[in-house]
Amino acid sequence: MRSRPLKVALLGCGVVGSEVARIMTTHADDLTARIGAPVELAGVAVRRPDRVREGISAELITTDATALVKRGDIDVVVEVIGGIEPARGLITTAFEHGASVVSANKALLAQEGAALHAAAEEHGRDLYYEAAVAGAIPLIRPLRESLAGDKVDRVLGIVNGTTNFILDKMDSTGAGYQEALDEATALGYAEADPTADVEGFDAAAKAAILAGIAFHTRVRLDDVYREGMTEVTAADFASARRMGCTIKLLAICERAADGASVTARVHPAMIPLTHPLASVREAYNAVFVEAEAAGRLMFYGPGAGGAPTASAVLGDLVAVCRNTLAGATGPGESAYTRLPVSPMGEVVTRYHISLDVADKPGVLAQVANVFADHGVSIDTVRQQGRDQGGVAASVEGGGGRREGGEASLVVVTHRASDAALTGTVEALRRLDTVRGVASIMRVEGE
Amino acid sequence: MRSRPLKVALLGCGVVGSEVARIMTTHADDLTARIGAPVELAGVAVRRPDRVREGISAELITTDATALVKRGDIDVVVEVIGGIEPARGLITTAFEHGASVVSANKALLAQEGAALHAAAEEHGRDLYYEAAVAGAIPLIRPLRESLAGDKVDRVLGIVNGTTNFILDKMDSTGAGYQEALDEATALGYAEADPTADVEGFDAAAKAAILAGIAFHTRVRLDDVYREGMTEVTAADFASARRMGCTIKLLAICERAADGASVTARVHPAMIPLTHPLASVREAYNAVFVEAEAAGRLMFYGPGAGGAPTASAVLGDLVAVCRNTLAGATGPGESAYTRLPVSPMGEVVTRYHISLDVADKPGVLAQVANVFADHGVSIDTVRQQGRDQGGVAASVEGGGGRREGGEASLVVVTHRASDAALTGTVEALRRLDTVRGVASIMRVEGE
Repeated sequence: MRSRPLKVALLGCGVVGSEVARIMTTHADDLTARIGAPVELAGVAVRRPDRVREGISAELITTDATALVKRGDIDVVVEVIGGIEPARGLITTAFEHGASVVSANKALLAQEGAALHAAAEEHGRDLYYEAAVAGAIPLIRPLRESLAGDKVDRVLGIVNGTTNFILDKMDSTGAGYQEALDEATALGYAEADPTADVEGFDAAAKAAILAGIAFHTRVRLDDVYREGMTEVTAADFASARRMGCTIKLLAICERAADGASVTARVHPAMIPLTHPLASVREAYNAVFVEAEAAGRLMFYGPGAGGAPTASAVLGDLVAVCRNTLAGATGPGESAYTRLPVSPMGEVVTRYHISLDVADKPGVLAQVANVFADHGVSIDTVRQQGRDQGGVAASVEGGGGRREGGEASLVVVTHRASDAALTGTVEALRRLDTVRGVASIMRVEGE
Repeated sequence: MRSRPLKVALLGCGVVGSEVARIMTTHADDLTARIGAPVELAGVAVRRPDRVREGISAELITTDATALVKRGDIDVVVEVIGGIEPARGLITTAFEHGASVVSANKALLAQEGAALHAAAEEHGRDLYYEAAVAGAIPLIRPLRESLAGDKVDRVLGIVNGTTNFILDKMDSTGAGYQEALDEATALGYAEADPTADVEGFDAAAKAAILAGIAFHTRVRLDDVYREGMTEVTAADFASARRMGCTIKLLAICERAADGASVTARVHPAMIPLTHPLASVREAYNAVFVEAEAAGRLMFYGPGAGGAPTASAVLGDLVAVCRNTLAGATGPGESAYTRLPVSPMGEVVTRYHISLDVADKPGVLAQVANVFADHGVSIDTVRQQGRDQGGVAASVEGGGGRREGGEASLVVVTHRASDAALTGTVEALRRLDTVRGVASIMRVEGE
């Protein structure tokens, strides 16, 4: 075993960074045995040097992150500051000065992954980022190594714990969105400004990373269709239950049926209660992977938090240190398929549409004609939580009546393209008899 | 990219081997791109050379496996013949002749893992075996790489698809063991001789492998306590349901509370319906991992079958080929903790015990005294599927009466050592008032 320690520079010492430093200290002997050499914390770059950081020697603390990564004796830079800059510049500088990098930065990887991989390769260094997606859950490594001999067709996942907590609360207690968000905030699951989570930006970054790795192509954040979950209502959950479903905010990466393109998207969707993702509760994450030979796999665990994220960072740190000792590098970017990312319009799935319609004869026929005109096949039509009878009763045994001459129709379609569905909804809105489109939700996981 | 192909020798061409060969042919371009060099099937050793093997050139087929691994130009030997010999000898010979090895052989790895790892290390080659445990589910790699910076405390898994299929059938249809086994056999989930599966030998081999990797110590097949599931009855499932549980055949690897030893065991156990493992249906496998920093993770997927197992083999093949090109090796055996494996008597868990007892006053007091004498604390006592009243009614509100003067008691304990429980049961059998011990089952996953 070599005695000169591998030197690690830690950029950022917040919730994750302090946990990384703590484990490096308390589990130093285990890390040494697993790596084959001691590993030493050589410097910690922070913004607020005066804050007390238990267990970290004061002389390791610096506010000059650039000088730290330029030192020249650093083997691995661990970047847990997040955001685009200064993280991007520091990582690039680290490669230039001979260090490998372990990052937990999903936003940066989603936006600049290709450039960072190129920089790593140019300098013969590693870029690992298991912690960037789904916290402690091993996902990047299984996708890029365990499934390296397989063909991934679909990745379907709950990759944001905050929104899963909120949706789980709405589902289990009947609470509305705001009430559930307030609880999530009070319990520390949601940040003061929850936008990145509830509007799906966080999940979209993860979807971009997962799609790129799964399909061996480049998928940027801008390629990911994104819809938040702030408009999901208690009524949507009631509708979902009637269909034997619940609602989750899903990141979905798919290979097109012809194999010639891929799609990546984030939006709330109904999934059957029998689907393994339906039972993922609270702030847990889970990712379902469908591969040609492997079949259906699921990876489940805590998707965030200091210790779980630190676990993923340290797993990468051990791997990068082993590679360093071996004079080798791990798998780099694999983007050889160069598959184009199709726009949302080409995504094919099922839809659950709630319409407020006039309660008079012929309405169902009108509505059904609009779907038919756009090539969208209807699976079922039914009443939504109103008295039996009305519009659709004579035709399909469903339909609902409101006392003031208005009724509610719920249409569930067979698989159709998003473009066809969008065209259908636009045409429905133009019908005099359609008073409003109460909600449109995709149905996944069937 | 290097143009000389990496040469692969395939040992065995049954369900898994033929699928490995098929994917190597049909996905050759993808494998080339992911490895960085073409990979070529250089020979296939089989027992019956006259069998038609679609897609495999006849001149690749040989019955002389030893000559194949000795050729000297083989980069990777893929061993999917199973069993101890000739697999053990062939793998050793492969290392001696400069090849790395990918194996799916759980029995061999459980029994001879240490020696094989030593041989691989001596010759500077790789030994990978993701396919040996839980088929396509990435588990070995996550445990030995993703969690390399964490401390695993427990691995709790369903690692045998045949027995999970049988138990799931019993649970969902009320069938008895034999009826469910017959269905599994008819559907191809159970072999003509199901002993290795239903008696837990297969799961025990996997438990040995998982425990060794999880705890960085050597755990041999003989170290694993093993109980089959042939004596699980429909009545046990009824009892389990009453407790809000189901029954699974579990492989359980645990670090002792004081951290100074580990245990590994396979037996049927009750687990709460709310536990993620409870909803693993049919022949699926799932493994729950509890780690200090990562928290609770679960890995789920098909645990057997030609294509899923081939997916795992090919993932390893890509990794080993990449290592070969880089002139490096992946992680070898990690057994530095040298933690002893404690005997079953030291395992601490909860128990569900069904007793047939005489229906007369004082029986519950006698029974309770026996538990107390052995330091086993009782959580609940209740009637098992009989009329209310009787033995225990006056004390605990439970207990059951049989018309012929016999009653049934179900005792659920708090956590106690297996040795204490065994002593308790022996003493209970000596009581005149205890007519029989109908079943003893451990309660896990709480």
